Amino acid sequence: MSEVYAARRTRLRERCNAGGSAAALVSRPANVRYLAGAAPPGAVLLLGRTEELLLCGGPPEDRPAEGRPDEAVRLRVLPGPGGDPAVAAAGLAADQGADSLAVEEHHLTVARHRAMRSVAPRLRLADLGGAVEQLRVVKDEEEISCLRIGAEIADQALGELLESILVGRTERHLALELERRLVDHGADGPAFPTSVGTGPNSGRPGHRPTDRRVEEGDFLSVCLGATYRGYRCEIGRTFVIGTSPADWQIELYDLVFAAQRAGREALAPGASCRDVDRAARQTLDSAGYADHLPALTGHGVGLEIDEDPQLTPAAMGKLDACVPVTVEPGVHLPGRGGVRIDDTLVVRPEADGGPELLTITTKELLAL
Amino acid sequence: MSEVYAARRTRLRERCNAGGSAAALVSRPANVRYLAGAAPPGAVLLLGRTEELLLCGGPPEDRPAEGRPDEAVRLRVLPGPGGDPAVAAAGLAADQGADSLAVEEHHLTVARHRAMRSVAPRLRLADLGGAVEQLRVVKDEEEISCLRIGAEIADQALGELLESILVGRTERHLALELERRLVDHGADGPAFPTSVGTGPNSGRPGHRPTDRRVEEGDFLSVCLGATYRGYRCEIGRTFVIGTSPADWQIELYDLVFAAQRAGREALAPGASCRDVDRAARQTLDSAGYADHLPALTGHGVGLEIDEDPQLTPAAMGKLDACVPVTVEPGVHLPGRGGVRIDDTLVVRPEADGGPELLTITTKELLAL
Repeated sequence: MSEVYAARRTRLRERCNAGGSAAALVSRPANVRYLAGAAPPGAVLLLGRTEELLLCGGPPEDRPAEGRPDEAVRLRVLPGPGGDPAVAAAGLAADQGADSLAVEEHHLTVARHRAMRSVAPRLRLADLGGAVEQLRVVKDEEEISCLRIGAEIADQALGELLESILVGRTERHLALELERRLVDHGADGPAFPTSVGTGPNSGRPGHRPTDRRVEEGDFLSVCLGATYRGYRCEIGRTFVIGTSPADWQIELYDLVFAAQRAGREALAPGASCRDVDRAARQTLDSAGYADHLPALTGHGVGLEIDEDPQLTPAAMGKLDACVPVTVEPGVHLPGRGGVRIDDTLVVRPEADGGPELLTITTKELLAL
Repeated sequence: MSEVYAARRTRLRERCNAGGSAAALVSRPANVRYLAGAAPPGAVLLLGRTEELLLCGGPPEDRPAEGRPDEAVRLRVLPGPGGDPAVAAAGLAADQGADSLAVEEHHLTVARHRAMRSVAPRLRLADLGGAVEQLRVVKDEEEISCLRIGAEIADQALGELLESILVGRTERHLALELERRLVDHGADGPAFPTSVGTGPNSGRPGHRPTDRRVEEGDFLSVCLGATYRGYRCEIGRTFVIGTSPADWQIELYDLVFAAQRAGREALAPGASCRDVDRAARQTLDSAGYADHLPALTGHGVGLEIDEDPQLTPAAMGKLDACVPVTVEPGVHLPGRGGVRIDDTLVVRPEADGGPELLTITTKELLAL
């Protein structure tokens, strides 16, 4: 793996050099992990003129062990507590003769940035922008394989839940049970807080589980994901509780299903993000649900659960091969509930069979 | 409760006015919640010259329902996705005629700060610093009551775990089980990721649970906490597995117990934070464990799990009455394991009975 991380750092250095900075400081944790193989809490990665350093605060014992950094990166632990590794890095970059250091202005706070300036007043702080996030968009097969395993784990956890008795249990309990099963099956942990919505709460994006209990006739919507070796996937399904769904439930489900399928089918290398969004959205729009739609119908996933690209009406940019995204349209009718169907897929060319579906739990409307 | 929030905002305004700013923008989520009663994701609180506004991004449906903001604060939702409420707030402050706006430079990123400057170029952005964090240090009885209930919940969850069979179960499973029990007993959720360490992992501060299984003869250390109405407490205990602890285990336990008691007994209004730290630390130091000690022996708790004051050798400042803190010294011997004992207490004057212990699970060395 070491060559992979080294190659990523080389690409970033090329971007920096093109921007006029010989040195870069990466502070956003997912970016540090992407480039160095591990991100101890608070660690920053300095790509200096002469060496590559991972700087951590506090004594080593305070840092939970999670993954080892790439051996080509030197680990340096600041002596004593309270020091800011970013400030120490600015001093080091200046000592190494850098005149400009590109930093992540979308992650560093104003206070930290000021402290860096004051420790190295002659060092020009430039903006690295989202350079690392951009490198992260297209995944290699190793990364996709982690997402694939995570999706399998989420499918398993969901499948087991569906075999248990649901009526009478609370949203909170179902969510906790799912999270326990994710870990049982080998996940590092949940990829994000598991969402379980019943009855009027069903279909709400980002719904936090409450003490409401599952009742006969409810829609039940579940959204969960596993983190596996740092990579986060997402699956969402909606079910009905009881033997016979009401007509409005069947109609709404079929509609969201059609929208989600349209979104999935629009995924292709070169497709514009807004066209994918439109494919999913227009099905719901034309059925009169324009006011009940979420702001986005999908997003990239990887080391974070919400990455570029964003599938929204205003999105710029096109999809590439090997970009994993969610497709997750839904409709929520206040007071009644709703439907949400969410898959994680990898964009693949037609010649390779088209989009690769990672989350394979059935999307038939199951009556449980 | 509305008067409580209004009084907090008034105190903040007084601090701001004294600093020369007629308007303030609070962005750190726990600070927003403290002043407005609720903090929808991404929301910022503008204390403007003429009105108080809670600004949120995105359509309301995307915001999970959690607590309602104080009615005296007007809620304004930005139209459409992607807008930054802090940037909108800067524009509003300028429109209202403010010439200076105090912002949380330790929370706002450089990129957001720049966007605020560009939308309101004539508005001077000053630094609010940790003004809200300072207001939060001393708690009112309502806040302490939330911490007390959270501590009861954590005690219950821990007590139930101790009655179950532990040998053969993994750290991960024990941690998940504890978190489920916290929610069962009415917690909003865990206050922080539950830590369970067995054998060589025992006593490590912030240890993340692994797949190691509990074995006979192990130390087992557990650190957990409940969030109740937003308030977070913490309890840590260490046990031995099997019928007869080894001599080294009894000695180490007695030592850490003595250190923790010394720390607890040093808590008093007017005591300096570093003296409390020293009381706990010197017991361990003088037994030869100076190299195995954590950077801090305690910290404040409240809406966040790690607040001011910090109990460290370099800490400035003194304790006040009604400040809740943890006292949590420990020793970890690499390869062997260790002991950690952690309580949440409220500083109270001698006349009121001295420090109030919120986490009441026994600190005898239990053999399980």
